[in-house]
Amino acid sequence: MPLMTSWVASANDADHPFPLNNLPYGVFSIGDGEPRCGVAIGDSILDITEAEAQGLIQLTDTPLFDVPFWNELMEEGPAVWAALRERLIALLSEGAEERDKVEPLLVERADAEMHMPFAVSEYTDFYAGRHHATNVGTMFRGAENALPPNWLHIPIGYNGRASSVVVSGTDVRRPWGQLKGPNDDRPRWAPCARFDIELEMGAIVGTPSDGPITVQEADDNIFGYVLLNDWSARDIQAWEYQPLGPFQAKATATTISPWIVTKAALEPFRTDTPEREVELLDHLKDCGPMLYDIDLAVTLAPEGKGESTIARTNYNEMYYSAAQQLAHHATAGGPMNTGDLLGSGTISGATKESRGSLLELSWGGKEPITLETGEERSFVEDGDTLTLKGAARGDGYAIGFGDCVGRVLPALDDPFAR
Amino acid sequence: MPLMTSWVASANDADHPFPLNNLPYGVFSIGDGEPRCGVAIGDSILDITEAEAQGLIQLTDTPLFDVPFWNELMEEGPAVWAALRERLIALLSEGAEERDKVEPLLVERADAEMHMPFAVSEYTDFYAGRHHATNVGTMFRGAENALPPNWLHIPIGYNGRASSVVVSGTDVRRPWGQLKGPNDDRPRWAPCARFDIELEMGAIVGTPSDGPITVQEADDNIFGYVLLNDWSARDIQAWEYQPLGPFQAKATATTISPWIVTKAALEPFRTDTPEREVELLDHLKDCGPMLYDIDLAVTLAPEGKGESTIARTNYNEMYYSAAQQLAHHATAGGPMNTGDLLGSGTISGATKESRGSLLELSWGGKEPITLETGEERSFVEDGDTLTLKGAARGDGYAIGFGDCVGRVLPALDDPFAR
Repeated sequence: MPLMTSWVASANDADHPFPLNNLPYGVFSIGDGEPRCGVAIGDSILDITEAEAQGLIQLTDTPLFDVPFWNELMEEGPAVWAALRERLIALLSEGAEERDKVEPLLVERADAEMHMPFAVSEYTDFYAGRHHATNVGTMFRGAENALPPNWLHIPIGYNGRASSVVVSGTDVRRPWGQLKGPNDDRPRWAPCARFDIELEMGAIVGTPSDGPITVQEADDNIFGYVLLNDWSARDIQAWEYQPLGPFQAKATATTISPWIVTKAALEPFRTDTPEREVELLDHLKDCGPMLYDIDLAVTLAPEGKGESTIARTNYNEMYYSAAQQLAHHATAGGPMNTGDLLGSGTISGATKESRGSLLELSWGGKEPITLETGEERSFVEDGDTLTLKGAARGDGYAIGFGDCVGRVLPALDDPFAR
Repeated sequence: MPLMTSWVASANDADHPFPLNNLPYGVFSIGDGEPRCGVAIGDSILDITEAEAQGLIQLTDTPLFDVPFWNELMEEGPAVWAALRERLIALLSEGAEERDKVEPLLVERADAEMHMPFAVSEYTDFYAGRHHATNVGTMFRGAENALPPNWLHIPIGYNGRASSVVVSGTDVRRPWGQLKGPNDDRPRWAPCARFDIELEMGAIVGTPSDGPITVQEADDNIFGYVLLNDWSARDIQAWEYQPLGPFQAKATATTISPWIVTKAALEPFRTDTPEREVELLDHLKDCGPMLYDIDLAVTLAPEGKGESTIARTNYNEMYYSAAQQLAHHATAGGPMNTGDLLGSGTISGATKESRGSLLELSWGGKEPITLETGEERSFVEDGDTLTLKGAARGDGYAIGFGDCVGRVLPALDDPFAR
């Protein structure tokens, strides 16, 4: 598919993240105004709440965009999702008849503050990148036992904490926690000293389900994708995670990029999952190309300094697709709801430069990485800004995600010393 | 504290679960009517939604009970919680002046269908009963390594799935899942063969928090308690839970009792946690008696047959209180919200008869229990009805919870054979 041209001139640049082919959904505000729904097009945002109020967009009998989140559209299902996309393309294409009505509803993206694009119902994080699981397993259990016995048979996941999900740009405070290092006789209460990132994609459930669903049904139910940084306190995690999994190590924050990139925009970039070492059980088998060819990168900028790219990888490195994760998630019969967020798991490639966490990049702190500014990093330091970037590259256009940014603030003074 | 007498005569029976001292909060409907908020008093329910509509109860400028859940009151905090309790006692006490206005708002509890009493924001399950952790640890890792190294230092917990929480009376469908038994070469897709219960208490967060809180603050933020059965698929759990904890094994259903028993009603029954084997870090230390003396029992009734009591224990067997769990939950800085539900973990006593799961009662299926009807049970069978019961015993009165009931339906035919 080639670039679709728009009368919004900035959207026609081959490198622009938000051409007409993309049309990602977000929630924005200008100045002291209320947050409202918007679609990114080039350097602008189309005010969808206003477009609906003026009758330019009418998808259902009752309004969908009079609330500052996209859940009401997400709940409507694929036919209404397609109708909105078709309507937006008609309104924003080169030569659109209604341009004069639409143009007054554009605002400068540079002036906008972005908010959470949807209300997160529940958040689940997976562990479905093979290179990441192998790297972490090798560090903790040795190369012989790197992958747990179940790893090649099910997408391992754990429930996370929806209340901790924040939008790009939100500062992240280094947490305190209970931890016990190799030199400690006893556990102690201390600020996290091994604070880390995880480069992930997040899949957002649109259509709800109630009971087991096929991988194809799961794929149909997914509304779109975001970049996702699952901040991780490695020292807290090491002490707490046996036997029931990570808990407070993952409860500080999970940052997502501000724009939901729809499945429709990503359709031309579908790719196959990697070859299977062992055959999956029927209910988890691929039913077509289920991953996406999306270039990903992580940058780190120390306070007041320029950014260094510390990792480059691609979403097609995952072993399990989001649809397979969602199908597995529904097997035991519990409902999956509109607004459920599924983290892919850390995305690492085969090479050292393609590892999606500092834990892997610095090999547990034993091999610090050197930034372009000359500083070394084993884990995240106070004042560092971490940014995830993602884009699918088409024929003369790109599908960008908008950066997923978080700056780390120093830990509070001991919150209990009072 | 003695029995407080009410003009609702049935509430004055020393064994009645719902005397004036209790006043638990639920959501009920009659016939085809809409669900509404109600307070149990004796054999009746006082229609709180209607009482507020008629101006008999007015706590805030805007209505709190025009919705079929108690979250709006829960959000208001302890002063408003106390004001409601005081007002209800004034309206329902022996000799109440406004009895003639209140009496028409009573309905027969026997005629009511009960619904979820609150909207669950997020659900967390802990593993904070020492006998249970020791039993399970002994079965899986041997007596020498029964308790994980962190167990005596933090209340171990994992995030569960809020969408799976259902009210007492909801049938529970035996799940399918991926499992691999000791005699299996490969994992397979099959109905769960080791379906189990977990006898727990659930603590409900009322006042939200955003950042670390003390144990005392956590206790202040708790609104009330319910009985909680965390249905568990042991064979699915055994295959999936390493390294990131239980996932689909706990996703089928978690049943709660229909009435929220308030902290105020339980106040006379506070007891200390057990003696500490190792000192807790300061931020998790007890700040007073933090558990409650609540007798608990589990009954099992095979289809069409009478019930047998299979376990009797007490909430005071817990090692960590709900307040300590909530304080730990908040350490890493993530928000805790109104409607968050915290499962205590399985409550087992020291004796065989006081174990709160069939896994422990039948010692992993090796020692099936015999019911009063003569049948044996290692795990739950199709058609079995499992009931949790709980009551605190005061001086001439009881504080009951209302039964927490679930009947197990057979697994569906293979949901993917289509």
